Parts: sequence; C-alpha cells; structure tokens
Amino acid sequence: MEADVAIVGAGAAGLVAARDLVRDGHDAVVLEARDRVGGRLLNGELPGGGPIEVGGQWVGPGQDEVLALIRELGLSTYPTYDEGRHIAEFGGRRSAYKGRVPRLSPAAILDIGQGSARLDRLARRVPVDEPWAAAHAARLDGATFGTWIRRNLHTRAGRSFMRLITQAVFAAEPDDMSALWAAFYVASAGGLDPLIETTGGAQQDRVSGGSQRIALALAGELGDRVVLDAPVTEIEWTDGSVRLRTPRAEVRARRAVIAVPPPLAARIRYAPGLPGDRDQLVQRLPMGRVIKVNVVYDEPFWRADGFSGQANSDRRGFAVVFDNTPESGAPGVLVGFLEGRHADAAARLDPAARRERVLADLAGYFGPRARDPIAFIERDWAEEEYSRGCYGAFATPGTLTRFGPALRRPVGPLHWAGTETATRWAGYMDGAVESGHRAAREVAAALT
Amino acid sequence: MEADVAIVGAGAAGLVAARDLVRDGHDAVVLEARDRVGGRLLNGELPGGGPIEVGGQWVGPGQDEVLALIRELGLSTYPTYDEGRHIAEFGGRRSAYKGRVPRLSPAAILDIGQGSARLDRLARRVPVDEPWAAAHAARLDGATFGTWIRRNLHTRAGRSFMRLITQAVFAAEPDDMSALWAAFYVASAGGLDPLIETTGGAQQDRVSGGSQRIALALAGELGDRVVLDAPVTEIEWTDGSVRLRTPRAEVRARRAVIAVPPPLAARIRYAPGLPGDRDQLVQRLPMGRVIKVNVVYDEPFWRADGFSGQANSDRRGFAVVFDNTPESGAPGVLVGFLEGRHADAAARLDPAARRERVLADLAGYFGPRARDPIAFIERDWAEEEYSRGCYGAFATPGTLTRFGPALRRPVGPLHWAGTETATRWAGYMDGAVESGHRAAREVAAALT
Repeated sequence: MEADVAIVGAGAAGLVAARDLVRDGHDAVVLEARDRVGGRLLNGELPGGGPIEVGGQWVGPGQDEVLALIRELGLSTYPTYDEGRHIAEFGGRRSAYKGRVPRLSPAAILDIGQGSARLDRLARRVPVDEPWAAAHAARLDGATFGTWIRRNLHTRAGRSFMRLITQAVFAAEPDDMSALWAAFYVASAGGLDPLIETTGGAQQDRVSGGSQRIALALAGELGDRVVLDAPVTEIEWTDGSVRLRTPRAEVRARRAVIAVPPPLAARIRYAPGLPGDRDQLVQRLPMGRVIKVNVVYDEPFWRADGFSGQANSDRRGFAVVFDNTPESGAPGVLVGFLEGRHADAAARLDPAARRERVLADLAGYFGPRARDPIAFIERDWAEEEYSRGCYGAFATPGTLTRFGPALRRPVGPLHWAGTETATRWAGYMDGAVESGHRAAREVAAALT
Repeated sequence: MEADVAIVGAGAAGLVAARDLVRDGHDAVVLEARDRVGGRLLNGELPGGGPIEVGGQWVGPGQDEVLALIRELGLSTYPTYDEGRHIAEFGGRRSAYKGRVPRLSPAAILDIGQGSARLDRLARRVPVDEPWAAAHAARLDGATFGTWIRRNLHTRAGRSFMRLITQAVFAAEPDDMSALWAAFYVASAGGLDPLIETTGGAQQDRVSGGSQRIALALAGELGDRVVLDAPVTEIEWTDGSVRLRTPRAEVRARRAVIAVPPPLAARIRYAPGLPGDRDQLVQRLPMGRVIKVNVVYDEPFWRADGFSGQANSDRRGFAVVFDNTPESGAPGVLVGFLEGRHADAAARLDPAARRERVLADLAGYFGPRARDPIAFIERDWAEEEYSRGCYGAFATPGTLTRFGPALRRPVGPLHWAGTETATRWAGYMDGAVESGHRAAREVAAALT
C-alpha cells in the first residue's frame, strides 16, 4: 500500500489526524493493531443489548476540542446522574452529603481547601506547552507528587483525599509520578475542580450511545482507509519517506503519525533507531493502571434511597464510584474503578474473589441490594496488549525536565500524537483530539 | 532450530546461563541481536591496535561471582592506576588530594560523612532479595533519592558530592530514581564505599585484554550455540514451550531465558501477553544515560605531574575521570563519563563541539597537554539500539513496592536474567553473572 501519510493507531487521536489530512486533500491510511477502532474508547454491552462504556467515557465543560467533534459528528451528550447525596469515607469518618465538600472535620476541610488552593496556584505557574520551563520546574520535577502532598497537607483525611483524587484522575499513586507532571496535568485541565467535579467538571456528561461512537463515526468517514488487525512492528524511515511493516501489510508513505501511548510507541522498532532523547523519554512515561467495573442492576435502586451513586473511600479498593445508568434510565448501573495499588491487589485475585470484594464495597456504600447485580462487566486495561494501562501515561520524576521537549518534536518524517502529547486535557479524549489536529497540521505543512 | 532452552541476549548474563545449562547436559541456543557478543561489555581499539574498554570495565573486591568466572576462564586482572593526587571540585573549591576524602570545608566533610553514614544505615535495613519488604519501604519508595539527599545533606558541597556519586554510580540523576532503589543498590554492593572507591571498591581492577574477553571466552565455549544478528521480536509461549522469532530464524524450546535490559525485554512481543504486573514493571525501569569517552595520549603525562588521573567536579560535564592506561603503560588514556543530565547536554552537541568540551574539562583538571590527544574514542550507550542506555536500569518511585516481585518471577516457561535482576552488585558485571547462574538453576529445575 502507498499513501501520503500512514497513521499508527485508530484511537481518537489517530482517527482525527487521518480525517483532517483526508479533508485537506491528502491520502491517508490508518493501521490499527486491534480488530476494532477506538483504542481506550470501547463500548461494552448491557443485558438487553444496550451499550455501556468500558473505557473512557466522560466529557465536560472546557473540553472544547472533543465537544466540537461530538457536535460535528452529529452525536449528543447527556448529563451524568448527579442528584442526591454522595458518600465519602475519609480518615475514619463516613458522610453522606450534597454539594462539593464531604462532611469532614473542620481541620480536614481546611487542610483540603488550603492544599487544593496551593496546587491550583502551582499549576497556574506551569506553562502547558512547556511545563519543563516553569519557574521551579527542576525542584518540582525532582520530587514525587506524594512528597508534595506530605509537605502541603497535614491531616490524615486531607492526605487521603489527595491520594484518592490522584488515583481517580491518573489511575496511579502520588508516589509514582513527578510533582511537575501533577501540576502540569492540573494546569492542562484549567484547575483541580475541573478535573474532579461531576457537574461543572470532567465527569459532567456522557456520549449518547457510548463514547466509542466518536471513534466509530470517524472511522466510518474514513472507510477502507482504516486497516484493522494490522499491528505496526517496524518503521523504516528516511528524511522524506517511511515504510511501516505489519504482519498483514506494508505501507509506504511520505510521513507517519504515531498515535499510540508512549510505552507502546517504544515497542515499535524504528530503523534507524530514534535519538537518545526520544528513546529515554518513552522509557519513562509509564501507563496508569485501572480495572473498570460496571455493575448492573434491574434499576438504579440507590436513587430511591436518595443517593447519587457517587462514592469515594480511603479504606475500600473500589474507591471511586459513579452512577452509570444509561440515558434511558434502565438498567441501573454503578461504575467504579480499582486504581493504582487497588488495581494491583485486585488483579492478583481470581475473578470470583475480585467480584466478591467489589460487591462488598458497593454494599458498604449503598446497602445489601448492591450484592445482587444482574451483570458484572469488568475490564483490566493493563492486560490489554494494545493499551497496557489507562487512563494515560504519566511522567516519572526528572522526565519532563530532561526529556519533555522530545514529547511532540517530530523525528524526521515521524510525528507524535495521542492524548499524552496534548497541552489541554492531556490524558482525556479532549487531549487526544487536540493532538490529532496538531499532528495533522504538522504533517500538512511538511507535505506542501 | 530446536533446543531445550533458548536464551535471548549474549551479554554476560545470557552467556553464563547458557554455559551452566550446557554443562548440566541441556541443549541451549543463545540468540543475540547484534553482530557481536558482550552486550554492555565491548572492547574498542587504541591507536596501535590494543584493546580499550568502551563499555563496562571494572571489577572489585566482593564481586565474587565475576571474579570466580574470570579465574575459571583463565583471564586475569590488573589494578586501576590509583597513585598520586586526585582532583576534586565541589562547592566552588578545588582540591588535589591523596586518600579517600577531598579537601573540603570542615562543614562539607562533616555533612558528607553524616550523609554517607545515614545512607549506609538505611541500606543495611534493605533486604537485597526483596527490597520491597524493607521496614520503611513504602516511605522510601515514595520519594526520589534527590528528595532524600536534600533532607539528609545540608551543605552545597555535600549535596553536590552526593549528586555526583549518584551520576557516577547510576548514570542517572538523584531526582530520577526511587530512594528505595538507591538504598537497595548500596545494599547490594555492601555499602557506599565499595561502590565509589577505586582501591578497595568497584573500580579497583580491570580485566587484562579488556572486559569483553569474558563474553568472548564464554561464547567461545558455546561455539555455534550462539547465533548473532538474531534480534528476537516475538515469543509465543505455552506452559511448556516457547517459540522465538527473529528475522533469520525461529527457535522452539521448552524454556526461555530473557537476558536483556528490562526496557528492551518490554519491546519483545509476547503471545500471549505478559501479566499486568510484569508489563507495568518493565514500563518503569528506565536505563541510565552515559557517554563514555576514552581520550588517548602518547603517554600518561599526568602521572609525571603527580596526578592519579582521577578527577571529579560538580561544575564540569566531564565530571568523573579515571586513568585508563592499559596494563602495558602506553599509550596514556584518560577515561571519563558524561552522565545523566551531562549526557543529555552533550548528546545534543555535534561531535566536534562535544570533543571540544571534553578536552576543555580535561585541560581544566590536568593542564593544557590534555588538549592534544592522539585519539578520542566515544560511545553513547543511549543511542545503541540493543542497550538504549547504561550502566543499567533503575527503578522510578513506587515501582519496587508495587511491582518488584515481578522482577525475577518466571512467567510460565519464561525466566528473567540480566544484572538488573541480581541481588548482589545489581548493575555490575557481577550481578549479570549472578543472574545467569540463578536463571540456569531455575530452568534446570524446571526441565527435570
């Protein structure tokens, strides 16, 4: 096969890049390793046949790139259920509360408020297009976010809260990542509240019919330009040409866009090999780890009990839960996430034991009815050969300041896309879309 | 091809494993990606044709595994030149000194002494076979070694000293790695002094004829069981069989030993894919970065000036220098290392500019004669496709406590070797040899 541009990966980033390039008059082919499009966006099936998101799912205000794309594709969104009381368990206290702030001790509330404000101030000083150029970049990048939390929060409940939101946002532990990466991430979302809130934040809305429809609609436009079951194992390149090898096909093109997560981009063989900066970078951007579980009931029984379905806990593995009932209102679905160390522990259990733990946690939040679901739909993204983790990659300490500029910088005819390369909402669908547009612009400029 | 055991990588670890298995009566084949054996051990050539080590080179007391192997292979060692005054530049002071301790301010000497003693005490509490089980493992693993240094050393010169020895030992920055990894590494060497000293430490001796001779001698014994130019791209496995694919050959065996650095083990495709724990682990063990430069002169002129050729500086890129003159006494060779951030900066220069910087640093240490070498032999290990960094991999924060047990744990018929999997002298030739013996024992037990 020949094309102007070959794109590796039919996730949102790769598909957006391909579509932009085709619209711009270029010939593009998308090589996808799996037998489906969507990458980390995937619709599962509810009893009765309706779709349920087993991968990325939410969009929210400020995510202008993905919201524009959803409109353009003729898709629509609907709000995440956000009424009733939320459940929070922090520092040994349980509270069922409305609004933004759980009922905690005054000391904990003050601690969380001050810590969050500090993180927001820190983030405002991090330029999203070059976080390595922030005023105190070296100092921040030289410590883990866990160290930052221990320095800036002082109550048990406050530290637990920050740890939990780190798990919820990154599917990683605060100790795993650079404090500069955490600050960049907050900056790229416009603040901590936009990251963690439901209404008004990144969990506000869902895509009618499931988020994978975005990828399916893009792929539909691209038609047979998208080649499935075509994992790219090798890319030979010169300044003006690329040759991509898959077990099924070989593609020659003038440029390539690699739109897969950084650790997977590292697993492609490049000939000649990539420069040291780029190779070292992708050795140091590991993926988060999450097992996502949709637990399905005849009806959303918690709503009748006055609960929103949202629950958080610093003492349960199933620590982050939302109402994930589809737009129609039935069946009732609770979705939760085993993240970071909770994912490690849960992945080591057999499926029956894991299910038992999850249901016990749900019963702890919402009462004994939670023990009797009609379906239990789990997805361990670290086990997926062509994702190897979710929600996205994060930077380990020292990485952004040493190798950050190699994140987006093309190497000869090779361009880099994927949500991890975005400046806004890195790690979200929105960032993926931004990165696809940006890579397409780079390629279009290079081809003319 | 068929064999009992297939071994991936003809570095010291893989060759030792193969030799042990062959001696034990098993049929083994070693698949090596490069056109040579030795991995990170490599002999270059001096003007006149003598060998010079451009990769790993030193052995020292306590490295019982590699010393025994050297004896067994009929090779010999000779001492690193260690007479005369060493040069140290820390915290704005230059000193030319004999013995162990540079002439620094009393405050700096006290600081370094206390900091080193604290690190040794910390290391003594880390069990080398399971560092993740240390008493304060979570706390240590949750911070960078940079954070540990900033907490435990208080003078500018003291912190510079600890940073420099981190660069010298790991070819990485203190900010890059877990404090638990640093403590484990010190523990695995039996203390900080054994790591950093010349006489009495890990830099004490060299292998006559160059360290690659170890690998060449092992490969000589194995004969045509070692297959060169055979990069393994894919390993299919079941509980009792493996099938390894290279562009040249396919090998079927009952067991495999993967004896390549962790980030490169991640780049092999496994079918079925490896468990999440193992995959997450190898996403989080990046390689250090070093450019090694041997600078060759007609004679070791610094010796006549009373210098040992050993120099360290916290203000020069060429921060760690030794006399690397061969056993015969001529030509004179200074070897130095651009490590960590110094490697990043130097790699971005063109070769002429890099040479100019290195020679300027050497002239700063040893006077203007250093500006006129007869040869300049550099090796950037991060650019090597089948090493992608040196001296070894290190663990980023959170990695050992979350995924450490996956480092050596076999996956079905797949066994893991390489210096990074060792319990003693991890990162050194000695660790590679230990790991080869251990992997061979595992495989032999599984085959009987």
